[in-house]
Amino acid sequence: MELNRIYAPVRDDLDKVNDTLKSISRIDFAWLAEQLGHIVRGAGKGIRPALTLLAGRSYDYDLVRHLPMAVSVELMHTATLVHDDAIDKADTRRGLTTINSLWGDEIAILMGDYLFAKAGEYVADTQTPRVVKLFSQTLGIISSGEIGQFRAAYRALQSRDEYIRRIYSKTAALFSLATQSGAILGHAPEAAVAVMKEYGDNLGIAFQIVDDILDFTATPEALGKPVGSDLAQGTLTLPAMLIAERSPGDNPVQRYFKGRDEASLKEAIGAVLHSDVIEECYQTARGYCAAALVNLGKIPATPARRSLADLAEFVLAQGT
Amino acid sequence: MELNRIYAPVRDDLDKVNDTLKSISRIDFAWLAEQLGHIVRGAGKGIRPALTLLAGRSYDYDLVRHLPMAVSVELMHTATLVHDDAIDKADTRRGLTTINSLWGDEIAILMGDYLFAKAGEYVADTQTPRVVKLFSQTLGIISSGEIGQFRAAYRALQSRDEYIRRIYSKTAALFSLATQSGAILGHAPEAAVAVMKEYGDNLGIAFQIVDDILDFTATPEALGKPVGSDLAQGTLTLPAMLIAERSPGDNPVQRYFKGRDEASLKEAIGAVLHSDVIEECYQTARGYCAAALVNLGKIPATPARRSLADLAEFVLAQGT
Repeated sequence: MELNRIYAPVRDDLDKVNDTLKSISRIDFAWLAEQLGHIVRGAGKGIRPALTLLAGRSYDYDLVRHLPMAVSVELMHTATLVHDDAIDKADTRRGLTTINSLWGDEIAILMGDYLFAKAGEYVADTQTPRVVKLFSQTLGIISSGEIGQFRAAYRALQSRDEYIRRIYSKTAALFSLATQSGAILGHAPEAAVAVMKEYGDNLGIAFQIVDDILDFTATPEALGKPVGSDLAQGTLTLPAMLIAERSPGDNPVQRYFKGRDEASLKEAIGAVLHSDVIEECYQTARGYCAAALVNLGKIPATPARRSLADLAEFVLAQGT
Repeated sequence: MELNRIYAPVRDDLDKVNDTLKSISRIDFAWLAEQLGHIVRGAGKGIRPALTLLAGRSYDYDLVRHLPMAVSVELMHTATLVHDDAIDKADTRRGLTTINSLWGDEIAILMGDYLFAKAGEYVADTQTPRVVKLFSQTLGIISSGEIGQFRAAYRALQSRDEYIRRIYSKTAALFSLATQSGAILGHAPEAAVAVMKEYGDNLGIAFQIVDDILDFTATPEALGKPVGSDLAQGTLTLPAMLIAERSPGDNPVQRYFKGRDEASLKEAIGAVLHSDVIEECYQTARGYCAAALVNLGKIPATPARRSLADLAEFVLAQGT
């Protein structure tokens, strides 16, 4: 299933989202336009703005409200990536040189703030205080979640609940903002808004689990960074967590977090790859996608709903 | 003239602003509560929230709208300070250890983002998309202005226009958001909103000029940092700019920006202190305060207007 086909019900409007994103980089900073263009164009598969448009499509869809919201969620996402890269001291993202690497941490901090500001302008253009509030709460969840992740670094003993909460903050909260705001701006009934929130939560968690799997199973070329980068940086994701869980007394994950040595890191990556933890992770992700499909069962059957269901399949099919 | 007396028409409501700010630090981050409490309590004289409340007081004042707005402007201010300190690698601010110094740049970036998010929540609580838009535009002006300042560092040849634009972004834009939003949320006539915007611009520019003067004339104890810190960091403020202007060929400011040596820095600070540039800077600040008073002449005479006028005097009286 290709994203292009999945996005069909909102294809033209997604192009408008992209045009708007590009226009931001053109106008505001001549000297940074190229770099900003890189970030904005490079920001993934456009899944977040697509979620807003598709969620709206099942209800009272109006581009006057849904377009700025879709732009806003992608800008917020981009802003958090710019700050994340500065925090992680990352040199590249998806093969492109990061802002912090090109211009320094100072510019990365300010450029992220600037993108948050732009995201705020677009969310204001929805003329809907309720989604402004949700937008701000989501940014609060993301940044406080990152603080939590930072503090949890290099801790080999963490519960699955902690992990799920962490990836909820990191990824699912924004997915959920995207779907929920699409429904709210489509004047959907409250029950449907709640359902679209849950769908976003479930899809986002599945998406991040698969992303965490790919950090081990994909090639360095596909990742644009070395295999096992999360683990290398002390972030315990589900695959490594399962390795640690299975041999609680002594395991390579724990040894790496203690000694931070290359040998233990390699051993831990090997342990993930040569066991069935990857399959168990996929199973967990499948559970969340199944829940997302159950959510969708509660909203009207439209081509947009079909696309939202296909997105769940698409997420699972990554890297398999 | 004491701030306490100036704030009299909104004293009780300013206490509510402070209580709300304190409650944010209490609830959300137990482990950071104390530090967050420091920042929030330490954030200056509360002049920005006071401006919002006083601007509203002359019109249809309603705490349901004006309180969250006042909280929001102070939170945005605090967030920018947290990021500024990380960018400047500052160890202390007003005698308190900075977040970046205590917890590292990573936490400072995320904590700033978190405070922006909280500011966004409060501005959403005004239920007024117009001020949400202004709020976001202001953050855009502040962050893009900082990028400009960063790029202008260690350039000894800058025009006064550049300087005024820079301090507009740095300080006046937020003063102006504070006053303008107070008027908008008070359902003031459009002409009055425009007047309150201009008043905020003028007062903010005067405030920053005086702040830039104090960076040379105050004691290190009062500043909580060494005298001439702006200059030391390559930021050309009005006093140093006038020194450079007067001897365009060769002057200690230019020499310091070129060699970055302690001797030239000391010489430049001495040149500022032992000439009449300080008086010329005060004269410029007085001009902006006079313009602010002209602005106030166009709105109804209320005790709140009296306070806004007194604030202009208070700003000028700093350090003299």
